[in-house]
Amino acid sequence: MRVTCMLFGLMLASSVAHAQQSHVNQHRLWGTLEKLSEFGRPPAEPGKPSGFEAGVTRLGFSNEDLAAREYVMGLLRDAGLTVRVDPAGSIFARREGADPKLPALLFGSHIDSVPNGGNFDGDVGSMSAIEVIRALNDTKVRTRHPLEVVIWTNEEGHHFRKSLFGSTAAAGLMEPEVIHRTDEAGATVADWLRRYGQDPARLQDARIPKGRYAAYLELHIEQGGILDQQKIQIGVVEGIIGFQWRTCRARGFANHAGTTPMPGRRDAFLATAQAALAVREEVRREGGREVGTVGYVKVEPNAGNVIPGLVEFTVELRDLDTAVYERTWARIEKRFAEIAAAEDVSIQCELVEHGRPALTMRAIRDTIREAARDAGYSTLDLPSGAGHDAQQVSHFAPIGMIFVPSRGGISHSPREYSAPDAVARGAETLYRTLLLLDQRLDGKE
Amino acid sequence: MRVTCMLFGLMLASSVAHAQQSHVNQHRLWGTLEKLSEFGRPPAEPGKPSGFEAGVTRLGFSNEDLAAREYVMGLLRDAGLTVRVDPAGSIFARREGADPKLPALLFGSHIDSVPNGGNFDGDVGSMSAIEVIRALNDTKVRTRHPLEVVIWTNEEGHHFRKSLFGSTAAAGLMEPEVIHRTDEAGATVADWLRRYGQDPARLQDARIPKGRYAAYLELHIEQGGILDQQKIQIGVVEGIIGFQWRTCRARGFANHAGTTPMPGRRDAFLATAQAALAVREEVRREGGREVGTVGYVKVEPNAGNVIPGLVEFTVELRDLDTAVYERTWARIEKRFAEIAAAEDVSIQCELVEHGRPALTMRAIRDTIREAARDAGYSTLDLPSGAGHDAQQVSHFAPIGMIFVPSRGGISHSPREYSAPDAVARGAETLYRTLLLLDQRLDGKE
Repeated sequence: MRVTCMLFGLMLASSVAHAQQSHVNQHRLWGTLEKLSEFGRPPAEPGKPSGFEAGVTRLGFSNEDLAAREYVMGLLRDAGLTVRVDPAGSIFARREGADPKLPALLFGSHIDSVPNGGNFDGDVGSMSAIEVIRALNDTKVRTRHPLEVVIWTNEEGHHFRKSLFGSTAAAGLMEPEVIHRTDEAGATVADWLRRYGQDPARLQDARIPKGRYAAYLELHIEQGGILDQQKIQIGVVEGIIGFQWRTCRARGFANHAGTTPMPGRRDAFLATAQAALAVREEVRREGGREVGTVGYVKVEPNAGNVIPGLVEFTVELRDLDTAVYERTWARIEKRFAEIAAAEDVSIQCELVEHGRPALTMRAIRDTIREAARDAGYSTLDLPSGAGHDAQQVSHFAPIGMIFVPSRGGISHSPREYSAPDAVARGAETLYRTLLLLDQRLDGKE
Repeated sequence: MRVTCMLFGLMLASSVAHAQQSHVNQHRLWGTLEKLSEFGRPPAEPGKPSGFEAGVTRLGFSNEDLAAREYVMGLLRDAGLTVRVDPAGSIFARREGADPKLPALLFGSHIDSVPNGGNFDGDVGSMSAIEVIRALNDTKVRTRHPLEVVIWTNEEGHHFRKSLFGSTAAAGLMEPEVIHRTDEAGATVADWLRRYGQDPARLQDARIPKGRYAAYLELHIEQGGILDQQKIQIGVVEGIIGFQWRTCRARGFANHAGTTPMPGRRDAFLATAQAALAVREEVRREGGREVGTVGYVKVEPNAGNVIPGLVEFTVELRDLDTAVYERTWARIEKRFAEIAAAEDVSIQCELVEHGRPALTMRAIRDTIREAARDAGYSTLDLPSGAGHDAQQVSHFAPIGMIFVPSRGGISHSPREYSAPDAVARGAETLYRTLLLLDQRLDGKE
């Protein structure tokens, strides 16, 4: 909050941006993305996209990930950084600053992917962080604050059903039981941590106390279509939206579809159909950026000639403001009761998972916006609908996130794509934001 | 049609019924139902219903069915009938009449069940047919027409996915390839026909030419809740309703439920929800007894955090009148196109199965109604929403069907139940209908 107040005057003074020279090297950056894409690239198949466009399967805690980490650590060392790996396997690489009293500025992302994913989710933020260091080295810029690049472990969490693995451990939020979970090959988290050179017994030591870092910045592809559709170059992330995930059961009565007249039916699917439409109506009623989805639907007995007796379905609501989805849910619950009464079906829901929103710090948002505009880029403030390591970092440091456009809003797919110049604009914004924060933050935040 | 005209005057002359003495023996009839229920009864389990209420699994073409057939053939022989088995395994048992020039009156049902079914579906009509013969024997009634009891093979068709097996063969509608189909144990239809003492190569010889039987009567439980709810004792079946079964695919676009704003979504499930509600609305618009059901729904990728991209669903329409469901479908198709356009989703449907309605003969319906009222029973004309062997018999003989109430409308379940007096009223109606038809039909139908 002190940062916000301190920066407010500076922000007002910043002028409308004009295109300026870029500090980062687009060609060099793209080259590292291409090289990284080789780790976990699917075997070439006739008639399928090859090379970069074939996508990637580089799960956290896999041999492909291990090999890619070696490549990344090599780049970091070659850039003159001091590399260490924390007990959760996350890579931290440090470049000392001019003022030894100041806490470091942390920035980075992840390099693991989902199965059959793309070469941008995580990779763009990771390779851009390295490019920023290289660009600073090129011009021999010395920052006041130390800089640390971080590559978080197993962000996607496909292995061990534990997403945001490294950042959760850093936030001190890791359940100790997690080390016993097994993957499909029977290996445990503990086994993998040992392969990553760590002692599983020390996993809790990955926790980072508040104050160690002055701020955390993460550049990421949007994974949505807003920037792409609106032709905006840089997204200033307002925060990572929170969510509530409920499982609901509509119980009617399964009966013969031929012998049961329409009036006497207790059709659980027709109740579910109305429920799903009610979810959308109530979300739309908010008129904001809230989203609500019925994504999972399981009908029983699920035969064309039997009236559905039981339907299980999910209701997921997301917004940057918990109050928005909480009041939306209150209205949905009322609608569900009305539908249930009208259809002579019961509808019961339970909250099975929820995540609090993680807001970015206003002063950092203002700085990102200023940095982007100084470089001549168009910007838009928007929330992140997807989860990111930054949300866990927010437990121990102020966070900021920079988005670059995803073509067609497609992500978690080999078709995921952001153009070389779009990626470079993100890296340049990261570079400029870091230097602005380095000037403005004074270690008292 | 000639029967109709001939009987019309007689029907008008029939007087309002008063309760009269019963010819069939309720206790004896119930005893055979109980004995039959032992073939395929599930093993007793603590805390579960036992005996009759445990239900039955007596699939067509199974060892349980084979054993039950031996019991039934024993009853038929003991009643003095001449028993033969046709090439499809159906049992025919003949009692000669006084006039050798007259074709036989055929009546019966089936004794196979669905897995975990009840002891009434099929059994009631089969055991009542035998009870009618026993009652005629008791009072030494000799009919003019020969009488034949029939027990059709594998009506439910759980084995070999071929329902109405025996009656389909009798109607000459059996696909020759069916003998090569295998069950879960790897046995073919041909194997089972041999176990039933038949030569599979002769299956097509089961075909019965028109004119061999003067009429066919089938007593059955309603398997719906109409008679039970309205406290009606005998249902006069207007016909077996026809159906059209379509499989539809709604194609939208699967995307991240967090990052995709509400306005840009192409949610295949929300389109399907509206489609299912439109099916009900358009069926209700007919205002008759048509039924329409969306019973099968499969969502892809079916994850709570992904917008449904593809939904496969069925639309089943049934009515006694093809024109009703054909015009309903035309309206539904138009509604689907509107929904698809509004949701930016495509909806494509294809007809995958259909069955023509099989109307009962009006003169036989009138006779059943008269017979029931003569015995003092209340009656209601109603369609059969379920399929029955009678629909196949309609290809070679005039048909009539008698329904008795099903408690709660429940069928294909161990909870299927019709009370002893309700069953006996059905058998008495069958007895009286046969004798009325025996008097009125003259072999020229």
